[in-house]
Amino acid sequence: MIFPDVQSTAVKSFKLTRVGIKGLRKPVTIRRPGREVVLYPEIDLFVDLPSHLKGSHMSRNAEILCEIVDSSIRNPYTGLEHLCADISKMLLERHEYATVAEIDMTADYFLERASPSGNKSLEIFKLIAGAVARRDDATTRTIGVEVTGMTACPCAMETTRILLSNEHAGKDFSNFPTISHNQRNISSLIIEFEGECDIEADDLIDIVEGSLSSPSHEVLKREDEGLVVMRAHKNPKFVEDVVRDILSEVLRGYPGLPDDTIVTVRSESEESIHKHNAFAERVTSMGELRKT
Amino acid sequence: MIFPDVQSTAVKSFKLTRVGIKGLRKPVTIRRPGREVVLYPEIDLFVDLPSHLKGSHMSRNAEILCEIVDSSIRNPYTGLEHLCADISKMLLERHEYATVAEIDMTADYFLERASPSGNKSLEIFKLIAGAVARRDDATTRTIGVEVTGMTACPCAMETTRILLSNEHAGKDFSNFPTISHNQRNISSLIIEFEGECDIEADDLIDIVEGSLSSPSHEVLKREDEGLVVMRAHKNPKFVEDVVRDILSEVLRGYPGLPDDTIVTVRSESEESIHKHNAFAERVTSMGELRKT
Amino acid sequence: MIFPDVQSTAVKSFKLTRVGIKGLRKPVTIRRPGREVVLYPEIDLFVDLPSHLKGSHMSRNAEILCEIVDSSIRNPYTGLEHLCADISKMLLERHEYATVAEIDMTADYFLERASPSGNKSLEIFKLIAGAVARRDDATTRTIGVEVTGMTACPCAMETTRILLSNEHAGKDFSNFPTISHNQRNISSLIIEFEGECDIEADDLIDIVEGSLSSPSHEVLKREDEGLVVMRAHKNPKFVEDVVRDILSEVLRGYPGLPDDTIVTVRSESEESIHKHNAFAERVTSMGELRKT
Amino acid sequence: MIFPDVQSTAVKSFKLTRVGIKGLRKPVTIRRPGREVVLYPEIDLFVDLPSHLKGSHMSRNAEILCEIVDSSIRNPYTGLEHLCADISKMLLERHEYATVAEIDMTADYFLERASPSGNKSLEIFKLIAGAVARRDDATTRTIGVEVTGMTACPCAMETTRILLSNEHAGKDFSNFPTISHNQRNISSLIIEFEGECDIEADDLIDIVEGSLSSPSHEVLKREDEGLVVMRAHKNPKFVEDVVRDILSEVLRGYPGLPDDTIVTVRSESEESIHKHNAFAERVTSMGELRKT
Repeated sequence: MIFPDVQSTAVKSFKLTRVGIKGLRKPVTIRRPGREVVLYPEIDLFVDLPSHLKGSHMSRNAEILCEIVDSSIRNPYTGLEHLCADISKMLLERHEYATVAEIDMTADYFLERASPSGNKSLEIFKLIAGAVARRDDATTRTIGVEVTGMTACPCAMETTRILLSNEHAGKDFSNFPTISHNQRNISSLIIEFEGECDIEADDLIDIVEGSLSSPSHEVLKREDEGLVVMRAHKNPKFVEDVVRDILSEVLRGYPGLPDDTIVTVRSESEESIHKHNAFAERVTSMGELRKT
Repeated sequence: MIFPDVQSTAVKSFKLTRVGIKGLRKPVTIRRPGREVVLYPEIDLFVDLPSHLKGSHMSRNAEILCEIVDSSIRNPYTGLEHLCADISKMLLERHEYATVAEIDMTADYFLERASPSGNKSLEIFKLIAGAVARRDDATTRTIGVEVTGMTACPCAMETTRILLSNEHAGKDFSNFPTISHNQRNISSLIIEFEGECDIEADDLIDIVEGSLSSPSHEVLKREDEGLVVMRAHKNPKFVEDVVRDILSEVLRGYPGLPDDTIVTVRSESEESIHKHNAFAERVTSMGELRKT
Repeated sequence: MIFPDVQSTAVKSFKLTRVGIKGLRKPVTIRRPGREVVLYPEIDLFVDLPSHLKGSHMSRNAEILCEIVDSSIRNPYTGLEHLCADISKMLLERHEYATVAEIDMTADYFLERASPSGNKSLEIFKLIAGAVARRDDATTRTIGVEVTGMTACPCAMETTRILLSNEHAGKDFSNFPTISHNQRNISSLIIEFEGECDIEADDLIDIVEGSLSSPSHEVLKREDEGLVVMRAHKNPKFVEDVVRDILSEVLRGYPGLPDDTIVTVRSESEESIHKHNAFAERVTSMGELRKT
Repeated sequence: MIFPDVQSTAVKSFKLTRVGIKGLRKPVTIRRPGREVVLYPEIDLFVDLPSHLKGSHMSRNAEILCEIVDSSIRNPYTGLEHLCADISKMLLERHEYATVAEIDMTADYFLERASPSGNKSLEIFKLIAGAVARRDDATTRTIGVEVTGMTACPCAMETTRILLSNEHAGKDFSNFPTISHNQRNISSLIIEFEGECDIEADDLIDIVEGSLSSPSHEVLKREDEGLVVMRAHKNPKFVEDVVRDILSEVLRGYPGLPDDTIVTVRSESEESIHKHNAFAERVTSMGELRKT
């Protein structure tokens, strides 16, 4: 039986910027330093569509994904972003009408961490990866991470210092951390670059986690819990501080990144004193950062 | 044209406990003390299905909902639970094969609140309502609320008191609140009763909000922010404390509720020091509570 | 008592592109054609932050929102986008250090619709609105809508036509709609413009709903259900078709929109035959569209 | 330093039915037939709390989880439900004041499936597992699965058969599937039993997937897409049919399950013709099922 290729019907219409599939889940094995990890990323894949074709052949997107992931089992990629780059190039090959192909992935990811007193646990993070291939231009890759931790507010701490001093006349509240609101914070760092720069997601996680008031932990016995609270309150941070400290570390840690590398940093605190969140963001390039 | 009633096809199969529709959204006007409010609840409606019928006539569920909500516009119900009760009874009438009918609603709801220094804002809460009608038995109604606020941990505060004393030898940390972890907390109180007891959702919100370490607020200028942090830390609470304080208030505030009234209380803290939540729950009856 | 303004602390750091609050909920009354409606939008508000200030005064964002919304109660805005424009301008006034201010809103919204046989119901849609104020430039406004409806696949229909012909030799399947996969589809149209163009959200909803294979309905009795299925299958659409038909209607319906108006159209089908979604998008300007 | 055990403070209050942690994520390795799989379940753990203790020692929950999961790495469990059973027993041991301990897990899980023409892909499913340990009674285990697939409506098909006949007088529409609405469907089967019955999650997935109108697939080339649509429309199903067919298969496939085994079956169709979902459920015991 021959079935009509409805997608290839000639039309005279508008071109489309992105056509493809969203929310596909697929097991992927990645070679991390010293080990192989299985990830179950959520994946989006798109190409553009010219004005003269009715539809994009979307099943090719899932097919290509299967082929490359299957063939990578014996020789795993060292990072999701490299897997993404190869898939985006193959998307351009198979969608002969497309001029640009894009893939985006996010995946849960676990790393061992120690509490202040040294208890080890596996903490959950999120990996972000992607690639954009252009027919007559370089392929860009995206590598990023999302980290959940803790922020304590530096402003409320100074206010309570005064309120406490006022309540307890004659007592000195000046040289230790006083009470403040603190909360769960979700921060992310995403880097988009051309070419082959080697950035390790584990390093990005270190940068983001180290820029919070404190990491959070799966298991905290009594003293550890107190030490985490102490650490956070000795290190109070606005979301603005978190974003800037991440930017600082990126500037310091990646002198080799070209000026046109795009850097996106976000920090969102699920404020305990509000029902809404506090948010800060910087979208910039390495070149712009260096001019600061 | 005559269309076959496929649902009424005779079968010899299993009965089903709940058949109906989920996630329907519909504007509803309710008369609250001194005003009328428009709610946009999310609604589920079910009846049971006997073993000899292929399908339930689900469109009747949405039809009944429309009829009763439409006819209530001129004379609004005083509570979602009363609207639910009438709908559940009508479901039983129209699904002549059913022995039980159930409706559940949740809706966002706003009430004016004042910050410690008296600044007013509209805070968001959630209303929970429902009813179960049984063919040969009384109709039960459910009224409940969900409140987002703040908890501060009583245990970490005592640990940091010792850690701070240890760091600052000779200083007395004994008679004021020391630093602790605090976070967004979501707590709920749900009451299920037979008959016509008059419970006001606004009162239930007062009970739950009053059982947290502190309410949270939309607008907090500097001093207010400090006062909220002070209030929370002078009133540190485990999720266990929150649930028990709500239970206490229910016992005290509703002496007229029959012994077979079902009371469900839950409290969940989105822990700042962990990536997971702390949770406490009590499901009980007024009779059992009174025996405590 | 005087409390330190920690946010205004001088620092030498990076500027930030967006600092503010996310996920605030607030009742707003809007004057729609012939009626007033209460909306409960979810709201984000941001300003930028210069490199020399430690923090943004976030409580001002919520304060301004309260003031403008409160003062609009007696004389409601005719659209969320106009409310947004005034808030964004006030954000710039109160954050004297900011060069750009942004506000985004989404709100559930109900409109009466009729089924094919004329049964009326209230269907749920989503309003999208926003504004960006720049200190030395015009304010841009965003108005958009999101519509949930139905798509039927044009490709699978032609394939099943052949499969059915093959199974039933001699039978003619050529001149009526044959079986295809269909599913829930969510499509959106967002327009961003400078100045005061009058676009009605209700018209945008009509455009998007009219570009699907069929609208979906709250209550469908037997014949109506059949008629909706017929309508969808006589009008099969890829997500690509949906996006293009929306673009066509925008081009036809808004000849007065300036060339630099930004138009974003998206369509996502929650495919019944896949666990992932099909997606199409066009981000463009009116000028570019007119060149097609 | 000695830190006070605030949780163990004596109180005179209400007992609590469930106290613990929710939403913890942890990598777990399970031995499936012929292979080992890594799962990243989301985990809830609770114990009850007597009326005389202020708080539950929640960190013990996460500690026990770590210990058992770590020690299982060399000798993995054959099912999440067996891991859960051991954890629930250990929870009772370590929370010496508790009378009941509960653990619940859900995890994404992938299995190879073939399209009608034999193309293989990995499809995503959900595993559900749990256990409840009681101090003076048997431990119950829960094993369940959630499957996403496709349903086509049997009622709309008969209505369109008549509508099409009416439009095309003289044509015979009686012996092939006519157009209907179809959509993504999520169905689940959960079994709760005492003791050591051996139920394989893979078999439960087969039962649920086989009870839908059709499974859904990651990759479908043109003919395969048509064949999936054909299969679904030759096998139209209400959510009621899906639930009953699953119940039938459980009754047929598990003659050895004791009468007091609890069986819960749910099916929810994300209706293409509505913005709400259709839902059916049966909660029952094997004994009750056998009496049908």
